[in-house]
Amino acid sequence: MVEELNITLIGTGTIGLSFAAFHLSNPQPCLVTVYDTRPDVSAYVQKHLPKFSAGPHEQFDTMNVKLASTLQEAVENAHIVQESGPEDLKIKKELWKTVEQFAPKDALLWSSTSGIPASQQSESMQDKTRLLVVHPYNPPHIMPLLELVPSPQTSESVIKRTEAFWRDRSRVPIHIKKEMTGFVANRLAFALLRESIHLVNEGVVSVAELDSIVESSMGPRWAVAGPFKSYHAGGGPAGLEGFFKNIGGTVQACWDDIGTPNLGDGWEEEVFRQAKEAYGTVNVGERDRITRRLLEVLKEEKENSRNRGL
Amino acid sequence: MVEELNITLIGTGTIGLSFAAFHLSNPQPCLVTVYDTRPDVSAYVQKHLPKFSAGPHEQFDTMNVKLASTLQEAVENAHIVQESGPEDLKIKKELWKTVEQFAPKDALLWSSTSGIPASQQSESMQDKTRLLVVHPYNPPHIMPLLELVPSPQTSESVIKRTEAFWRDRSRVPIHIKKEMTGFVANRLAFALLRESIHLVNEGVVSVAELDSIVESSMGPRWAVAGPFKSYHAGGGPAGLEGFFKNIGGTVQACWDDIGTPNLGDGWEEEVFRQAKEAYGTVNVGERDRITRRLLEVLKEEKENSRNRGL
Repeated sequence: MVEELNITLIGTGTIGLSFAAFHLSNPQPCLVTVYDTRPDVSAYVQKHLPKFSAGPHEQFDTMNVKLASTLQEAVENAHIVQESGPEDLKIKKELWKTVEQFAPKDALLWSSTSGIPASQQSESMQDKTRLLVVHPYNPPHIMPLLELVPSPQTSESVIKRTEAFWRDRSRVPIHIKKEMTGFVANRLAFALLRESIHLVNEGVVSVAELDSIVESSMGPRWAVAGPFKSYHAGGGPAGLEGFFKNIGGTVQACWDDIGTPNLGDGWEEEVFRQAKEAYGTVNVGERDRITRRLLEVLKEEKENSRNRGL
Repeated sequence: MVEELNITLIGTGTIGLSFAAFHLSNPQPCLVTVYDTRPDVSAYVQKHLPKFSAGPHEQFDTMNVKLASTLQEAVENAHIVQESGPEDLKIKKELWKTVEQFAPKDALLWSSTSGIPASQQSESMQDKTRLLVVHPYNPPHIMPLLELVPSPQTSESVIKRTEAFWRDRSRVPIHIKKEMTGFVANRLAFALLRESIHLVNEGVVSVAELDSIVESSMGPRWAVAGPFKSYHAGGGPAGLEGFFKNIGGTVQACWDDIGTPNLGDGWEEEVFRQAKEAYGTVNVGERDRITRRLLEVLKEEKENSRNRGL
């Protein structure tokens, strides 16, 4: 018999509610407890949580969410505590100090932060081995990636149990070995974003044209095979080495010519204007619907390949 | 009645044959003529062209390809001439000088080059207004993107006719307004690749982990909505401006910390080794099969959205 997990989510912003929706709609049994300091938390959750459902074919009962009225009550029976609160080091340090007092000794403690490393968040904790960052790619009820970023103090067993939890739920947990600024996914995306800003700023393409380029090339390519795998394939039997042998000169020429716009350099007004003009307010529901379908198809096709031994 | 187009492809490497496969399997009628200086061109094309078919449900008859024995014969009745020959400026300059002599005056002249700008290739031409780069994202029989990179001399009407040709075939031609090194797609991809190499080199993640990260986050996201559109959506009603207001600090911190590995810096051996160990020889056929399916689903879903006015 599988034990029903008690999952406590602290913070009911979009990340917290998206995680709640993920756990509630997952076939693995769990009890979701939510805690937030906002006074209208009950009405707020009842109103906003249903928006994270995939639609009529995927229902979850928001009544299954337990609201805790104190932090102690929220965590005292938890197997997992994930905080998705404000990006404020002082708040997070205080939070973990309290959580540590009341949560069971073997509860996993996770932070959804995109920027404050576990080594800083755990500074006031007695036992710093229990905490790590579990950074989702937004929104977590749809996107498979979780970046697991332990501090140097986080124990191996905590990392392994965290990995196992997400793998069991068909997600993609990746253990990041150093507490780099922005972790990995954002660093990569922002590197590409920076060159995108440079090219729009130089008048080479518009904001919408740049998006079309990515949507009709790298996007679908990298959804199937990441950059290294793609270029390794591009090099033929000689792999990545062959790729660099063939077009390393062009790669280096692009690197030598790469743009380095910074915030405050004056590109902002025109880039923001073009985005607004091209997209107005994006229909996120449609985007999410298409993304879900895409991920389903990818999963199905990759499983087909694996089953056929390819 | 639609006029049957005479499309001449010069060079029978993987790009040339992939373009041939695209035209032959496209419902729009055309006659494909191929020219290459290799002595065994007929046997070579018969042997390799079928590999670019999508499988049993998409057959094209390689007998429909006409082989020209001279460059003059290849181009004298062409509506379109696309060269995918060696990346050698001298060869391309000579080629266009000859093509110009024998091709009809209104034939469109395209180069598949990934690096030699039209302004250099056209140096020996009488009429420099006719030539532009039409750079595919490999392989062109699958990937929708075509980067159209005219020289400053290329005429507006040549650009417009080239755009119309690809749009009529449900492809995504994007007019690049300046002859930048590496054009746009490669510049963007190589910017992300550079940071990828940096992170592997720093021991933050392995080659295979980095690919998993991209495949489960940016890849599918950018297949649906490019980077600007995604971050514009992420900023809520305030759009891209709101996004930078919220997390511009993290973006800039990542930019400040960005890696700048170069070729020859010593990362190569370990990165190449990891790629080889993780992937051996990539099954490109499987990758292409999954990519086709993904692109079909994306097209279908985006059309559904449009039809519902979303």
